[in-house]
Amino acid sequence: MNQPTEPKADKSGVRRHNLSLVLRTVHEAGETTRAAVAARVGLTRPAVSSLVEQLLDLGFLVESGKTFSGQAGRPGTVLKPADTGPAGLGVEVNIDYVTVCVADLTGTDRIRRSERLDNRAAGAAEVLDRAARIAADALDEAADRGLVPAGAGLALPGLVTGGTVRQAPNLGWNEVDAERLFGEALAARRPGTGGPAGLALTSDNEANMAALAELWFGSLGDLRTFLYLTGEIGVGGAIVVRGELLRGAHGFAGEIGHLVVDAEGPRCRCGSRGCLEQYAGQAALLRAAAASDVAELVRRAESADQRALGALAEAGRMLGRALSGAVNLLDPEAVVLGGIYPLLMPWLAPAVAEELSERVVSGLWPQDAARLRAASPTSDAARGAAALVLHDVLTDPLAYATTVA
Amino acid sequence: MNQPTEPKADKSGVRRHNLSLVLRTVHEAGETTRAAVAARVGLTRPAVSSLVEQLLDLGFLVESGKTFSGQAGRPGTVLKPADTGPAGLGVEVNIDYVTVCVADLTGTDRIRRSERLDNRAAGAAEVLDRAARIAADALDEAADRGLVPAGAGLALPGLVTGGTVRQAPNLGWNEVDAERLFGEALAARRPGTGGPAGLALTSDNEANMAALAELWFGSLGDLRTFLYLTGEIGVGGAIVVRGELLRGAHGFAGEIGHLVVDAEGPRCRCGSRGCLEQYAGQAALLRAAAASDVAELVRRAESADQRALGALAEAGRMLGRALSGAVNLLDPEAVVLGGIYPLLMPWLAPAVAEELSERVVSGLWPQDAARLRAASPTSDAARGAAALVLHDVLTDPLAYATTVA
Repeated sequence: MNQPTEPKADKSGVRRHNLSLVLRTVHEAGETTRAAVAARVGLTRPAVSSLVEQLLDLGFLVESGKTFSGQAGRPGTVLKPADTGPAGLGVEVNIDYVTVCVADLTGTDRIRRSERLDNRAAGAAEVLDRAARIAADALDEAADRGLVPAGAGLALPGLVTGGTVRQAPNLGWNEVDAERLFGEALAARRPGTGGPAGLALTSDNEANMAALAELWFGSLGDLRTFLYLTGEIGVGGAIVVRGELLRGAHGFAGEIGHLVVDAEGPRCRCGSRGCLEQYAGQAALLRAAAASDVAELVRRAESADQRALGALAEAGRMLGRALSGAVNLLDPEAVVLGGIYPLLMPWLAPAVAEELSERVVSGLWPQDAARLRAASPTSDAARGAAALVLHDVLTDPLAYATTVA
Repeated sequence: MNQPTEPKADKSGVRRHNLSLVLRTVHEAGETTRAAVAARVGLTRPAVSSLVEQLLDLGFLVESGKTFSGQAGRPGTVLKPADTGPAGLGVEVNIDYVTVCVADLTGTDRIRRSERLDNRAAGAAEVLDRAARIAADALDEAADRGLVPAGAGLALPGLVTGGTVRQAPNLGWNEVDAERLFGEALAARRPGTGGPAGLALTSDNEANMAALAELWFGSLGDLRTFLYLTGEIGVGGAIVVRGELLRGAHGFAGEIGHLVVDAEGPRCRCGSRGCLEQYAGQAALLRAAAASDVAELVRRAESADQRALGALAEAGRMLGRALSGAVNLLDPEAVVLGGIYPLLMPWLAPAVAEELSERVVSGLWPQDAARLRAASPTSDAARGAAALVLHDVLTDPLAYATTVA
């Protein structure tokens, strides 16, 4: 939490900063009072009251009607972030589905739509138009419920920089200007809203977005240094070091799915051979198990079907082999498995743990079984993408005030 | 560079901070004047002059006798860091050698001793006593030359935390209290100096120390995010992100030598199979080439000996395979090869580059050949270890003033 800025040359800049400080303080607390905010941020009660009034007027905060007398002094009215008004739109475009969600300022996922679609069979513009269609529906529902998205986050299955997908091997995309295409498609579906339907767009790799969701909303507790793997058609990865994404020199870090587990293995769409996702990606896993979808795979594993169990054990071994390399390089506190993996943990985890135990130099694995974790079911890339928008709103609410007021 | 601290409550703390600021400014410039220091750090000329006088008195700075008139105003006497007085002792204990150096306050390596020794054949206490013997000789020579080491850095070939080698598979060490053993051995050889011969000790993995030497003294230019591999009996690794070592949650990050390049390959001393160092470590490479030492390997490669060329190409392929994984995970600006590798670059680099080109997802390799680099010949772990001591001196010179005065 930043310190308050005391008045200096630019008074309006100071007030803007302090509006953010008060809003973030209420957001972190969930529910609090003016007095508690003042104590926490080190501003005077009258200063905080004035800032709170403005945030109430602009629709960022609401009073709950309850009073709270836990603090010293007279009981205060309870403040909380508004659950209508400013919101974040999150859009995850993946290989075989699109998920859209709208999160309110408390971070709660209020609207969620997901469609199974084979995005490999369509061009980039068509895929992003599908995403825009689902997003437009979600925006209609948001409007009905009094939610006003301040921006949209796009989570994309590939290397993403500057709003462009540089490469997404499983979609066959190269240099796809995703923000522009999505924005234009959304504007066409919502005429009169200006630009990309009046929304500021931001975009990132889907594993990065999912890792942020896990960090902000998951059940990691104090863990702040972890690897995140997301099992989809591809296997995405993200690295979080002390609460920050490690992005690398060009924004391409975290490609765990393309660690080589067998140098002479099958050709991967990235151009290499024997990448992890050729063994532990959803498509490879279902093929090895001769299952038509993940639900069938789970059902057959539960009934001890040997082919399903064999495919899961092999995928677990390959996951463990790739993870042992990543753990030897990065020494994380934990490895978090997301996407389809949480459903498959009972069958994957033993093989993963065995490989980690044999191959991690420090010998720190897996005495502490809690270091291999399933991602929280509600923390996915779409939610992380929505949260990135909320993060921008919390950092400078005035920039979004016109959207709301 | 930090900003100067203006006088507040604790005047002596402020002066102490500003002494460091002035000393670091002169150190970075190499040669400068009082006026240029004042302009750079934002303190008044009289304040800087007073700080400089104290640093001259204590032996941290010297005046060169030259004057310098490049700045506005009258010519100033040239200041530079002292090349006698405060210094750093660096000690690298590796599998088959010990290197000791003494670096003066300019960072220049003034004394250097290296002995080939098979440290696998001796116990930890004996190995650290050997290092202490060589260090004691270097300290005698340092005293003759007016150099006064303020501390010693120990670079060790394994996982190091809290002064202890947690594991060094190639030495067979587990939980070896290296700082204590080295300090006691040095004290025994230099009686009457108190504790570990009056030296503050610090220790780290040798690849980390070598990477710091490359960062501070090498030829990386503006590169601040890189992987560093050091080819010795083992293969050490370090990760530098924006000028800082990435240490991981327990201090064990960077173990590139134990990335698996062939899961069913030969058993490694770490307990795993098919680790990179089983193919590209010095022992494996010499064995594959049937060469008795690196000089012979180079000689035979130069005369196009097929066995030597084959061994180098295979080692290069395995290096490239492991590095492609590390690059996919970390997206560095460059990979720097140290230890024995700089001598072998003509034969290793083509195979490394081919693997990187095939296997790095972003396709960014190796269009820019400068991204695969040989370490600077003068930047090794011993020098990095000495530099860590100098870093402490520069950060708080007064703490080391009694050593010097």
